Amino acid sequence: MLTDIEISRQASLQPIESIATAFGILPHELSPYGRTKAKVDLAITNRIKDNKHGKLVIVTAVTPTPFGEGKTVTSIGLTQGLQAIGKKSCACIRQPSMGPVFGIKGGAAGGGLAQVVPMEDLNLHLTGDIHAVTSAHNLAAAAIDARLYHEQRLGSDAFREQSGLAPLDIDPDKILWRRVVDQNERSLRTITVGLGEVNGPVHQGGFDISAASELMAILALSRDLKDLRARIGRIVLAQNKQGDYISAEDLGVAGAMTAIMSQAISPTLMQTLSGAPCLIHAGPFANIAHGNSSIIADDIALRLADIVVTEGGFGSDMGFEKFCNIKTRQSGNAPDAAVLVVTVKALKSHDPQAGSEMDKLAAGYANLSWHINNVAKYGLPLVVSINRFAEDTQEELDWLKARVLQEGVFACEVCEAFSQGAEGAAALAEAVVRATEQPSQFRYLYETKQSIEAKLLTIAEAGYGASGISLSDKAKTQLAQLQRHGFDKLALCIAKTPMSVSHDPKLKGAPQGFELPIAELKLNAGAGFITALVGKVMTMPGLGIRPGYLNIDIDEQGEITGLA
Amino acid sequence: MLTDIEISRQASLQPIESIATAFGILPHELSPYGRTKAKVDLAITNRIKDNKHGKLVIVTAVTPTPFGEGKTVTSIGLTQGLQAIGKKSCACIRQPSMGPVFGIKGGAAGGGLAQVVPMEDLNLHLTGDIHAVTSAHNLAAAAIDARLYHEQRLGSDAFREQSGLAPLDIDPDKILWRRVVDQNERSLRTITVGLGEVNGPVHQGGFDISAASELMAILALSRDLKDLRARIGRIVLAQNKQGDYISAEDLGVAGAMTAIMSQAISPTLMQTLSGAPCLIHAGPFANIAHGNSSIIADDIALRLADIVVTEGGFGSDMGFEKFCNIKTRQSGNAPDAAVLVVTVKALKSHDPQAGSEMDKLAAGYANLSWHINNVAKYGLPLVVSINRFAEDTQEELDWLKARVLQEGVFACEVCEAFSQGAEGAAALAEAVVRATEQPSQFRYLYETKQSIEAKLLTIAEAGYGASGISLSDKAKTQLAQLQRHGFDKLALCIAKTPMSVSHDPKLKGAPQGFELPIAELKLNAGAGFITALVGKVMTMPGLGIRPGYLNIDIDEQGEITGLA
Repeated sequence: MLTDIEISRQASLQPIESIATAFGILPHELSPYGRTKAKVDLAITNRIKDNKHGKLVIVTAVTPTPFGEGKTVTSIGLTQGLQAIGKKSCACIRQPSMGPVFGIKGGAAGGGLAQVVPMEDLNLHLTGDIHAVTSAHNLAAAAIDARLYHEQRLGSDAFREQSGLAPLDIDPDKILWRRVVDQNERSLRTITVGLGEVNGPVHQGGFDISAASELMAILALSRDLKDLRARIGRIVLAQNKQGDYISAEDLGVAGAMTAIMSQAISPTLMQTLSGAPCLIHAGPFANIAHGNSSIIADDIALRLADIVVTEGGFGSDMGFEKFCNIKTRQSGNAPDAAVLVVTVKALKSHDPQAGSEMDKLAAGYANLSWHINNVAKYGLPLVVSINRFAEDTQEELDWLKARVLQEGVFACEVCEAFSQGAEGAAALAEAVVRATEQPSQFRYLYETKQSIEAKLLTIAEAGYGASGISLSDKAKTQLAQLQRHGFDKLALCIAKTPMSVSHDPKLKGAPQGFELPIAELKLNAGAGFITALVGKVMTMPGLGIRPGYLNIDIDEQGEITGLA
Repeated sequence: MLTDIEISRQASLQPIESIATAFGILPHELSPYGRTKAKVDLAITNRIKDNKHGKLVIVTAVTPTPFGEGKTVTSIGLTQGLQAIGKKSCACIRQPSMGPVFGIKGGAAGGGLAQVVPMEDLNLHLTGDIHAVTSAHNLAAAAIDARLYHEQRLGSDAFREQSGLAPLDIDPDKILWRRVVDQNERSLRTITVGLGEVNGPVHQGGFDISAASELMAILALSRDLKDLRARIGRIVLAQNKQGDYISAEDLGVAGAMTAIMSQAISPTLMQTLSGAPCLIHAGPFANIAHGNSSIIADDIALRLADIVVTEGGFGSDMGFEKFCNIKTRQSGNAPDAAVLVVTVKALKSHDPQAGSEMDKLAAGYANLSWHINNVAKYGLPLVVSINRFAEDTQEELDWLKARVLQEGVFACEVCEAFSQGAEGAAALAEAVVRATEQPSQFRYLYETKQSIEAKLLTIAEAGYGASGISLSDKAKTQLAQLQRHGFDKLALCIAKTPMSVSHDPKLKGAPQGFELPIAELKLNAGAGFITALVGKVMTMPGLGIRPGYLNIDIDEQGEITGLA
């Protein structure tokens, strides 16, 4: 079989204007960026606001493995399959970060015959939204340090006199806003800034990957530009020496940050290999952020399509949980059905010593069962999709499907979108259509009016199967502070390893009886949630021993090679 | 008068496709980015390679002041004026950095009735080229630190075995590649990286502004994608513990860096307020880099236009010197004439104690005279353009013009493009056309085959009027090293203050008898020059006490306000 980038390159793409027109986007609502991608102007929302509301399907997966389970392959394949059976479908997915693209994973545009194309456009820059997030984020960081520098250099009175601004008296040891870069950059996790002769107060800082920026979360959760502006103003950047919060509005930088992001607010339209529309917007990771694409893109797609397919990153304990408890709570767009992606290979990996191949599969089944039960808590009709790999035997697939159907899920189908495109996802598409026609009983796992501790406990126990939680001293101090400032009625966004449903990547299958260790609590007042860092979670990945960038180059024709 | 952004917004822009067609760019050679800007595909170069070669005009200026002399206003105004008198003209200018946009300067798109529009597109992101430079640059930085980390963690033998790669044995204290960000970020000038538990060897590092990246210089100097790839491969990133240079090719990261920049290699077409074409490409600063837009844009424009107007940043000691000695040497496109921009206000600022307004003007004239003589060294027909401000008196303008004409320049005209657009630049345009019809005697100031010291001495004495040079111990060591590695036959790129023709911003007018202190020498093997840091020059600006970002916001209609 050809590589993903070869398939992408050989595809005969339609002009993006044709994709848009067929989807119901008018020419003046489209801003082309090259020939194969275009931004959709938010002015469209007013024109289509009374259109019929389509069905929303959320795609999630079992606990991921390094092999890749093909959640995006399934989302794109399903979108193509729905189109093939006569439904107007659209995929709403995230923009890939260049960190993993050059780190380990290669591209993130689906794969095989279920891809968003051209895949190199999706994987590199796209229409610049991640760059806008990075720039706006780092402008605030520069503004904090510049303000510290000038206030310290001049003293409060002279500063006030010379600048005409009220001193903020920021505490350099209580800066809550780190910097970001769209790279895997281990060595920037913890740094000291302000060294040298005249470069301002020396203090500790560090970089997260841009996908972890609160601005990225905000981009995905905003309703429009006005909402974006208001949320950015609410971001808490630091504390002053009296312990009060200092917001982006206080620093006078919220307007400029919004200006930098004023184009990023528009989703980008691309196409799948079959010519189905795909809206790409925002890219928060699901382990260290909320892991879902934008509300704006969903809102547009739902007014134009019969069925919209979106996905939450990593397993159902990660992006799916946050889709339900964070994104849906803010959007009001309750999902109509869920698809849970599983592979034979992933299940076998939970207990590689279990004996025969069938024994391994049976042993690992506990993980799938855990995720089926997890999705059930949210009251959604569930279709399990077995993403078929070439090495899977018919016996394995038959056993797995039969086993799944004993769980009372709505349906279970084998999906072969990777090797067969739309046709390979037709059965899945049929099942998903039927699932969305069921009455939805969607419900949240917790209520935001609960206390922070109660919400954490609910997520830990009801969400993960933990026996309880423990808070570090740091987290306890932060919790008290959040309560004191009245920020305790927000949703919780758990940052933890995706490699286990617990906090410990070594706990495979469906672990029980563990205590969830809350290391840190971080306010995201603009995004409207509190991030809880659980265990040893890193908000900045590192490059591996043989990073993906080694394979990437341009060829004699100037085409990019080695992306996947 | 309206503000720049109000004028920009009220302008009735032509679709960028119409601008392209009128200019001779075919629809399939154009990649629109929105409705008002488009990338020009490099495939065009082959089609137009036998077209007649237009005339090239380089715009420079006297020593700058904080008021702004209006060099870009003049370049854009001249382009509009040339169009108005029936010439096919094109401006080739740099992409503004967001550092100054949010720092002190506001937008950099010309001003008044001589603007590139829409100015907010030019000033924010444009088509993402600076972001691409920043990303590619920082990928190399991440690659260096990741390699250090893994080699140190495993030891050479285990590293070789596990990665299949030859150890590079990079010396963490001899990393020559800093990081970049497109911000004014004083506090990142000097940092310590790699702190924390497992984040790799701790060492000192720092950030420059993206405009100072060698990749930005390379983007402006490359002939095509293949040349870009080769130059990136040659970049020297670090030294190993034996003192040998380690290149981007050695680290295996050159291909991925090129892939990140593969769209950035195409210039961006925009329009002036009068609908003249403008190619925007690359953005190296003229104080800390070579300060000129791209060779690729010039090459395309010269095959499509009668006259191409480009500019070198800051005064003629800065961008113009580098235009002649670096860019022209690499491009082979010798300029046909030069325009030197001066303002009454700028000249008066050199000696504010000189008495009457006319006395101040006469006292400051020495600076203009210096720049006239400086341009003369390169053998170019020179037109002095007095950029008229509202407060200039007719007496001042008459005196200045008469004084200039005594110097033997080709012509001197008052330019009123700011307040009157094309019409206000018609006389200047006529003069420039006649100047380009003179025989050109263009010559370089120095030959690259001279030794590094001889080249530095020539630039200092013949270029700046210094009495000699002094090298710091650091510079001496670096010089010996460059010679040892065979990198002594490159051009020199002087990084120094633009606020004086010397290294000392306090030395106004036409200083003499100063010694030029060379603090540091930095190899730019990919760009093909050695940067000499002179005096206390910063490769990263800082935000001021009342930064530009305070004024910037979006209004009720979602339009950006406060950009200029």
